Amino acid sequence: MQPKHEIDIRVRYAEVDQMGVVHHARYFEYFEMGRTEALRACGLNYRDIEEAGYFLVITKVTCAFKMPARYDDILTLETWIEKLTRLRIDHAYRLWRDEKRQLVAEAASTLGCVDRNGQLREMPADLLDLFGKASRQE
Amino acid sequence: MQPKHEIDIRVRYAEVDQMGVVHHARYFEYFEMGRTEALRACGLNYRDIEEAGYFLVITKVTCAFKMPARYDDILTLETWIEKLTRLRIDHAYRLWRDEKRQLVAEAASTLGCVDRNGQLREMPADLLDLFGKASRQE
Amino acid sequence: MQPKHEIDIRVRYAEVDQMGVVHHARYFEYFEMGRTEALRACGLNYRDIEEAGYFLVITKVTCAFKMPARYDDILTLETWIEKLTRLRIDHAYRLWRDEKRQLVAEAASTLGCVDRNGQLREMPADLLDLFGKASRQE
Amino acid sequence: MQPKHEIDIRVRYAEVDQMGVVHHARYFEYFEMGRTEALRACGLNYRDIEEAGYFLVITKVTCAFKMPARYDDILTLETWIEKLTRLRIDHAYRLWRDEKRQLVAEAASTLGCVDRNGQLREMPADLLDLFGKASRQE
Repeated sequence: MQPKHEIDIRVRYAEVDQMGVVHHARYFEYFEMGRTEALRACGLNYRDIEEAGYFLVITKVTCAFKMPARYDDILTLETWIEKLTRLRIDHAYRLWRDEKRQLVAEAASTLGCVDRNGQLREMPADLLDLFGKASRQE
Repeated sequence: MQPKHEIDIRVRYAEVDQMGVVHHARYFEYFEMGRTEALRACGLNYRDIEEAGYFLVITKVTCAFKMPARYDDILTLETWIEKLTRLRIDHAYRLWRDEKRQLVAEAASTLGCVDRNGQLREMPADLLDLFGKASRQE
Repeated sequence: MQPKHEIDIRVRYAEVDQMGVVHHARYFEYFEMGRTEALRACGLNYRDIEEAGYFLVITKVTCAFKMPARYDDILTLETWIEKLTRLRIDHAYRLWRDEKRQLVAEAASTLGCVDRNGQLREMPADLLDLFGKASRQE
Repeated sequence: MQPKHEIDIRVRYAEVDQMGVVHHARYFEYFEMGRTEALRACGLNYRDIEEAGYFLVITKVTCAFKMPARYDDILTLETWIEKLTRLRIDHAYRLWRDEKRQLVAEAASTLGCVDRNGQLREMPADLLDLFGKASRQE
């Protein structure tokens, strides 16, 4: 059972389009915040990872939009690691409104690891260990 | 055979993140531009559609990122309608660099039609006809 | 003496450009958050104001960037009302890093009030009263 | 007399907020495009400048918003160099709608030159020369 990490996000005015709903591109910023905070919750800092010369790049995303979110809404984002190998980290996300009674979006992303030159490479063992702990811990 | 509509997009400085590559969320703005221009190419204007009270909302997106794009790159975006029913429009996209020698991203999206109150509804016959023509014309 | 309202903002990855610093356009989203939260702190909700048919539009901004902010920094934003008339609200902002030891940016903005048709108009007395209280309260 | 460089910009759907007008933060992306293209018009490429180790950072902006711009509008942006010294480049901008009959925004920005470590420094003579030519040429 993967632990799910939760954060709350207040919708900004600038994130809403002329239909009065959060623009779909903006959700990917939320998911990125979810990854950053899920990492931090298990003692990892993505900034440190980049400073060590490893860069995690998005290679695939998918998102189903179930219900609109609006300016000033407080959303709850759940983030968890679905699968972890030396070559990729698959995250999944659920974004809720109204104390998790309304599902706003469900999404998934795949990260690959690249070096400073943008070449895909295996994650170093220590980084993999830390992610592994993150994806198991309760 | 669906006609593919092409536009060129110059990458803006503001679209690039600290890895020096276009941030993945920004690609969805490009695909939206692709839809707008593909519509226009067959005589439809999305602004007019909204003014008539129909709103096309994204219900699903998926994107595979194949290769980074950088500031000041000129990208070529192909957009086409993959499937069309009264309830949904499925678009597909290919984004290229360097005169289509390097594939940057492949994506797909699904649009549903909602009214001013955000309720999903069938597309009106005349709108459907126009999209139908768009997806067949050469 | 105007009361200053403070919020903390965690810099998102998507907000940082290829120099590794927050892109200057993104600061204006922060200032907008500052206005929303300063309003809320004195019992006003900007969403309610719009629903009542009044829209506050930015007519002028100015910002001096003193020092870069980086991904994952926690910034402290001070927002206050500098001047208030029936026709305009002038806000001022200071954005800090590192427990207010480093000034990141200083800014000012002017809001005008428009109706649903985009015509500039005087603020209604009750709204003005509320802003007046907001700009005096300790 | 400074030469003014012009570009056309089609407003993207993602740039418009729930008032149906371009969000004020987005204008600064337009001005940045104006600077990039004004440079290119006189034979300079900002990407090359960064690759040579010089970074031009925004130290101040100001913008007056005169009239809203809407989704799908084609805007005309004029960009020119107002003042040039070894330490700063001041640009000015005018953004128009409808074949320059309606002024949307007037703005100004100041750029400083920093090295890879973010330290402010004088612009190198050759770069200054090129900007000088840019600001004089017809």
